[in-house]
Amino acid sequence: MRILLIGASGTIGKRVSAELSKKHEVISGGRKNADVEVDITSAVSIEDMFHATSDLDAVICAAGPAKFVSLAGMTEDDIYVGIHGKMMGQVNLVRIGQKYLKDNGSFTLTTGILADDPIAGSAAVSLVNGSVNSFAIAAARELPRGQRINVVCPTVVADSAEAYADFFPGFDPAPMQSVVNGYVRSVMTNVTGRIIKIY
Amino acid sequence: MRILLIGASGTIGKRVSAELSKKHEVISGGRKNADVEVDITSAVSIEDMFHATSDLDAVICAAGPAKFVSLAGMTEDDIYVGIHGKMMGQVNLVRIGQKYLKDNGSFTLTTGILADDPIAGSAAVSLVNGSVNSFAIAAARELPRGQRINVVCPTVVADSAEAYADFFPGFDPAPMQSVVNGYVRSVMTNVTGRIIKIY
Repeated sequence: MRILLIGASGTIGKRVSAELSKKHEVISGGRKNADVEVDITSAVSIEDMFHATSDLDAVICAAGPAKFVSLAGMTEDDIYVGIHGKMMGQVNLVRIGQKYLKDNGSFTLTTGILADDPIAGSAAVSLVNGSVNSFAIAAARELPRGQRINVVCPTVVADSAEAYADFFPGFDPAPMQSVVNGYVRSVMTNVTGRIIKIY
Repeated sequence: MRILLIGASGTIGKRVSAELSKKHEVISGGRKNADVEVDITSAVSIEDMFHATSDLDAVICAAGPAKFVSLAGMTEDDIYVGIHGKMMGQVNLVRIGQKYLKDNGSFTLTTGILADDPIAGSAAVSLVNGSVNSFAIAAARELPRGQRINVVCPTVVADSAEAYADFFPGFDPAPMQSVVNGYVRSVMTNVTGRIIKIY
């Protein structure tokens, strides 16, 4: 398979890349140090990225900014960081990518446990995660030519558990292999419209 | 109680208004023909509305635009109708309103079944509904001074079932009294952080 992985240098992305590269061609997409440059906050940049690639069997997104901020101090701009980033970035990958992805190809997006199990300061991130989850189950029924879409929705992941320990007290970190398996399952099986919860 | 009801002239709003007016003071908010004028797509207008009211025990929103459009034909602007309307309109009511609402007051927002049970053309609406659901459960844990928040999330409602019949084939319409009860329960009990599903 020929797989485009956006966010390949991130905590999750580098693990997914290592696994999928064993048997597949992985093209990395990102703002820098990537095979294909892309800023997912820009629909134009996403369109350019798809123009510059071809014959994709799968698109994975493990990237997208969103902002932690208390409800008391939250500005509109704080919320729009996530709307323009992790929300519309991923929505636009699907909206635009459906024209380019091969028949029976798959999209795999990333959200997280905060969609239905929030923590202090997560309201703007929860909003983004919930939106992408609901978008994906709707999009699954409308994608053309046998294309599929799923979302991997992990709890705090083992490789960043130490850095986030103060924000996720008492949350069991997801083992990285379980997280990676979520992406593999989305790409390699025939599942669609699924929120693959890693918790 | 003194209750601000935005969307009081809508299909759901007029039923909720009729019920709550029996025992409470209901102040209607809307773009026109309302006690207080407000355009919920504007944070400035929302702030002005709260300045013009006072001593609110409850804020209910049964309004907010979002657009049905096929995934194949969807533009970014189509999606932003819902982001600026039903999504950020409701989020801003809470974000701004928390400063004005009385101690132990409640917010009640409105989403719908499409958050987790989509129909053809609903991806942009599902996105909005999912976002507001997740925002609300997160916000519930951070609101100040005993304030509460819930979301009423109905399936297609009886009073508009005929108009929407072609879009919701086989969906059992929710009786209006059940829908109204969702709002009453949110306002009158001590429940918070709940997605009150009317289906």
